[in-house]
Amino acid sequence: MEQTILEKLRINQIPQEIEIAYKNEEFPSIEVFLRKIKEGKIVVPANKKRKRNKYYAIGDGCSIKINANIGVTSDFSSFDLELKKAEICEKYNVESVMDLSCGKYAKSFREKLVKEFSFLVGSVPVYDIATRAKNFIKTKPKDFLEVLEEHADSGVDFLTIHAGINLRLAKELEKSQRILNIVSRGGSMIYKWMIENQSENPYYEYFDEVLKILKKYDVTISIGDAFRPGCIFDSGNILQIEETLEVSKLAEKAHNYGVQVIIEGPGHIKADEIPYTIKTIKRICHDFPLYVLGPLTTDIAAGYDHISGSIGALIAGLNGADFICYVTPAEHLRLPNIEDVKEGIIAFKIVAHSVNLVKGFKKSIERDYTMALARKNLDWEKIINTSIDPDKAKEYRKGLSITTCTMCGDLCAIKNSS
Amino acid sequence: MEQTILEKLRINQIPQEIEIAYKNEEFPSIEVFLRKIKEGKIVVPANKKRKRNKYYAIGDGCSIKINANIGVTSDFSSFDLELKKAEICEKYNVESVMDLSCGKYAKSFREKLVKEFSFLVGSVPVYDIATRAKNFIKTKPKDFLEVLEEHADSGVDFLTIHAGINLRLAKELEKSQRILNIVSRGGSMIYKWMIENQSENPYYEYFDEVLKILKKYDVTISIGDAFRPGCIFDSGNILQIEETLEVSKLAEKAHNYGVQVIIEGPGHIKADEIPYTIKTIKRICHDFPLYVLGPLTTDIAAGYDHISGSIGALIAGLNGADFICYVTPAEHLRLPNIEDVKEGIIAFKIVAHSVNLVKGFKKSIERDYTMALARKNLDWEKIINTSIDPDKAKEYRKGLSITTCTMCGDLCAIKNSS
Repeated sequence: MEQTILEKLRINQIPQEIEIAYKNEEFPSIEVFLRKIKEGKIVVPANKKRKRNKYYAIGDGCSIKINANIGVTSDFSSFDLELKKAEICEKYNVESVMDLSCGKYAKSFREKLVKEFSFLVGSVPVYDIATRAKNFIKTKPKDFLEVLEEHADSGVDFLTIHAGINLRLAKELEKSQRILNIVSRGGSMIYKWMIENQSENPYYEYFDEVLKILKKYDVTISIGDAFRPGCIFDSGNILQIEETLEVSKLAEKAHNYGVQVIIEGPGHIKADEIPYTIKTIKRICHDFPLYVLGPLTTDIAAGYDHISGSIGALIAGLNGADFICYVTPAEHLRLPNIEDVKEGIIAFKIVAHSVNLVKGFKKSIERDYTMALARKNLDWEKIINTSIDPDKAKEYRKGLSITTCTMCGDLCAIKNSS
Repeated sequence: MEQTILEKLRINQIPQEIEIAYKNEEFPSIEVFLRKIKEGKIVVPANKKRKRNKYYAIGDGCSIKINANIGVTSDFSSFDLELKKAEICEKYNVESVMDLSCGKYAKSFREKLVKEFSFLVGSVPVYDIATRAKNFIKTKPKDFLEVLEEHADSGVDFLTIHAGINLRLAKELEKSQRILNIVSRGGSMIYKWMIENQSENPYYEYFDEVLKILKKYDVTISIGDAFRPGCIFDSGNILQIEETLEVSKLAEKAHNYGVQVIIEGPGHIKADEIPYTIKTIKRICHDFPLYVLGPLTTDIAAGYDHISGSIGALIAGLNGADFICYVTPAEHLRLPNIEDVKEGIIAFKIVAHSVNLVKGFKKSIERDYTMALARKNLDWEKIINTSIDPDKAKEYRKGLSITTCTMCGDLCAIKNSS
């Protein structure tokens, strides 16, 4: 069997995927980059079966990457709509898309994403298991492994596996003081499966088998956090920490076995608690790349969670989160439509860019510098083209004179002071 | 002449405005609140001529307040449109509105705001001077003072006065390394006036006269920052610091004289530079209440500056900013329409609320707690009514079943784990 990227690096081979990913970053030398991948601090997810032109590195010293969630559901959404969302992701250079599909079109949708787009593709096989099974609770561990392999075989670059929530922790939930028990969809399924069967989490019990499959296709494992907080009051709850400790052990095992690892993180966190929460998770989990959803700084922003999520993601990014999953305005209310997806993407692109400026990436700084000069020169064409979404900037400027800015009208501050 | 709020407190009288403002806050005792107002760390802007039922405190230990900018212009906007914006501000409980009107309808618009709404009203008299004068450069210092008094007399609670940019600093601009010289509209007017006349800034030269007028009506002075950065590269520029030092002296003088003081701050700042920038300004300016515009964490978010502004405002709020001015999606592109105003308000309400949660305000925490419980119980009516903008939440839920959340469909995490 062909070796994984991590194994090749360990014997000092440099796979082409790594070379491509390196070119997007701004490391002082490739040695530093390679060392960090070997240490597990950076991942370059790349399913062996999926050849493409773009590869992305995620982790310490890399620019922040963003992920968008899309996916068909048998009930509520259509194949075409979700495909349009994928096109929007490609248009705005989203680095990663997680396919949360379930139902009968899940497989063909996933295959289409893998084949026709250049972003990273991730998926969550347990959704698929649950919607296919007549009775999910009766599903056997071997079914978990079979669907896992099916996903890996379809070419996805990373898979979310909720392996950290084991039976011991599941049993503790009842006694816990959490308000919203479990808000992780995958986590809640596995919780229910464990409690009703009084059996161990198959991903936890058969973790070696899981790793064997992932290694075969060189799929990166993204270890899900079932106990991520669903409201600001649950953040830092003891079960969340307990699960993080389990995740840490599994992560180390996977890494040593030659499988790249991403750690998934919260969730909902009060703004002042984000820095230590992020730093603690990174520390516990060997500084492996951390992937966060939001986090949201308040629970009341339904309809605008792309904003509460952006705020939280920025603080997370400044404190060590490497990979941020967008939140759309539809979060907590309904499945996002195209416009929601676009709003979520742009908001999180702004966050990633704002953090990348802080990290000192030349590419990012040059873009802001270009904008500053364009404004100094009142060069509207350049202002529009340098902005995060030229379509919207152009729309806003429609019908307006190119010599005057309507913000100040004749009282233009730039003209007055130049 | 009746004494100002500050003077009354100094002889241990407690004006009614103070009692009303105190009730909105959560201080351990009124003594702490009064002491902080006497020290200048909190202001309760309240023009003597304007009696109303609501008064707001801004500053150390108070909840974060937000401001929205609106205003008629002779060229680009209509009286009715701006009035509708004011109604939106009232609807969403915006605590303060700055009237940036200029042109012939400015006076009647300002009077309407003062008379018909309950939010704080602020204005910038120099805009009015500039648009009324045939030739602004030929305006005399006495005209500056006359228009200032006219604004104070119309009942506005606070006035932005760019008094810190003096002739010495104006002359230094040419030699400076700033990219965007001056982006403060009022500041740029005064700059031009000074340079072309080679005369001192009237607000600076006749600051005692300015204070006399403000005291007469008990108007709070909001000292403008002409040298606030217009791009992330100009942040912390030496002229900005020099102006802050001048502002500090003027602020102390005003406070000692019995006039309440707000300090205006940046602008555009890289995310990591916001904490020390805010703390430095607060320290230099005696911990007087700090009012910031954004700040924006990147220059490239035109069309979405409510998001880059929210991100920055949150960090500013966590680090000592007391009063945050909204930024709308239209910022840098055109005058905002009604929808832009609403988007700006909601974004900054989310920021203020997120900071208020961190500050531990019971009222804020209870609201998030109500939401968390509503989610636990899948009580959609309560979820909608507890959200920041129930209209939007309701719209998003339209046509959806009240028993299932479409985020997860049948695979509901909350149901699985309850």
